[in-house]
Amino acid sequence: MSTRQPVPAASAIGLRIRRGQRLRIIDPVGGQSGDLMAYSADASERLSNGRSFDYAGKIYFSSGDVLWSDRSRPMLTIVDDDVGRHDFLYAACSAQMYRIQYGMTQYHANCHDNLCAALRELGVDPGPLPSPFNLFMHVEVDADGRLRFLPPKSRAGDAIVLRAEMDLAVAVSSCPASTCNDGATARALAIELLDD
Amino acid sequence: MSTRQPVPAASAIGLRIRRGQRLRIIDPVGGQSGDLMAYSADASERLSNGRSFDYAGKIYFSSGDVLWSDRSRPMLTIVDDDVGRHDFLYAACSAQMYRIQYGMTQYHANCHDNLCAALRELGVDPGPLPSPFNLFMHVEVDADGRLRFLPPKSRAGDAIVLRAEMDLAVAVSSCPASTCNDGATARALAIELLDD
Repeated sequence: MSTRQPVPAASAIGLRIRRGQRLRIIDPVGGQSGDLMAYSADASERLSNGRSFDYAGKIYFSSGDVLWSDRSRPMLTIVDDDVGRHDFLYAACSAQMYRIQYGMTQYHANCHDNLCAALRELGVDPGPLPSPFNLFMHVEVDADGRLRFLPPKSRAGDAIVLRAEMDLAVAVSSCPASTCNDGATARALAIELLDD
Repeated sequence: MSTRQPVPAASAIGLRIRRGQRLRIIDPVGGQSGDLMAYSADASERLSNGRSFDYAGKIYFSSGDVLWSDRSRPMLTIVDDDVGRHDFLYAACSAQMYRIQYGMTQYHANCHDNLCAALRELGVDPGPLPSPFNLFMHVEVDADGRLRFLPPKSRAGDAIVLRAEMDLAVAVSSCPASTCNDGATARALAIELLDD
């Protein structure tokens, strides 16, 4: 069974996933980044990039890699990935980030608020949001530790598939930050929930 | 005025710092890593590696660099640094980490619990602890994103000095993980609070 749903441009959607189910996240147009946030179903554990870096021994994740919780339990395993490069370093973009880095004086749609709202709709109080898994976002770390944004490697129809290793509340956003999307305005992503 | 205090081996201490004060953290013996965690005085903001990576545009921090809060405000500026390499990627070591990576079957002293206890002694409920600034910890990111532990670059008496950019509750630990200390058992660090 599969149910395809859009993640509207510059928005986020939330869904609950049972252990063993797989979440497929598709970039229908190509070059669009997004954020993935996961909490345990009872909201006692959150996605943790710091634990994932430690247990994986690396900062770039693709097929076969595990995303860990802040209580050191596997949350999601990447079981398929057309793209091969996602980012796990950056915090979600936020209203303050658009003010500081883009000079925005008005409120700007942002992944932080969108992910928090999507989690609240699932009945989860996110508290301080940890760093999300930045889908399709292409960041390179130079030898001196400098970070560079490169165009996402995702082409039209490319997808990543993650298997839930515990019951989860998940939120997926389409990122409004043009910097992450090779200068483009945000476009929709899509998700599909696949049973065992 | 300065008040030098030890951070006992494999322990943590907490202290409140006023905006403008400087915190000097010394590695008296050399080769000893530690963790630094900071919350705003009212505990509404936490240290954020993801925001710091974003605003600094890099993952290695030294003199002149700012450590940001999860609400996008400067918390600490590194004003002096004898060492030049610290880590901001790894989560604090935890009891679960020693079980998973070291095969420990008994409770093991760890920076996560030590930092949380030190913050609670200051009246701060840490909630889920964000990734700390890993003092003197020497991590190298290879071109393929793989992480390597190298011996800390700190020699006896080397120090880092950070200026508080807001009123803070701070915890500093001496890390018990031999992996981070070039195989050595944990030794004490020291801190000194310097007024304007």
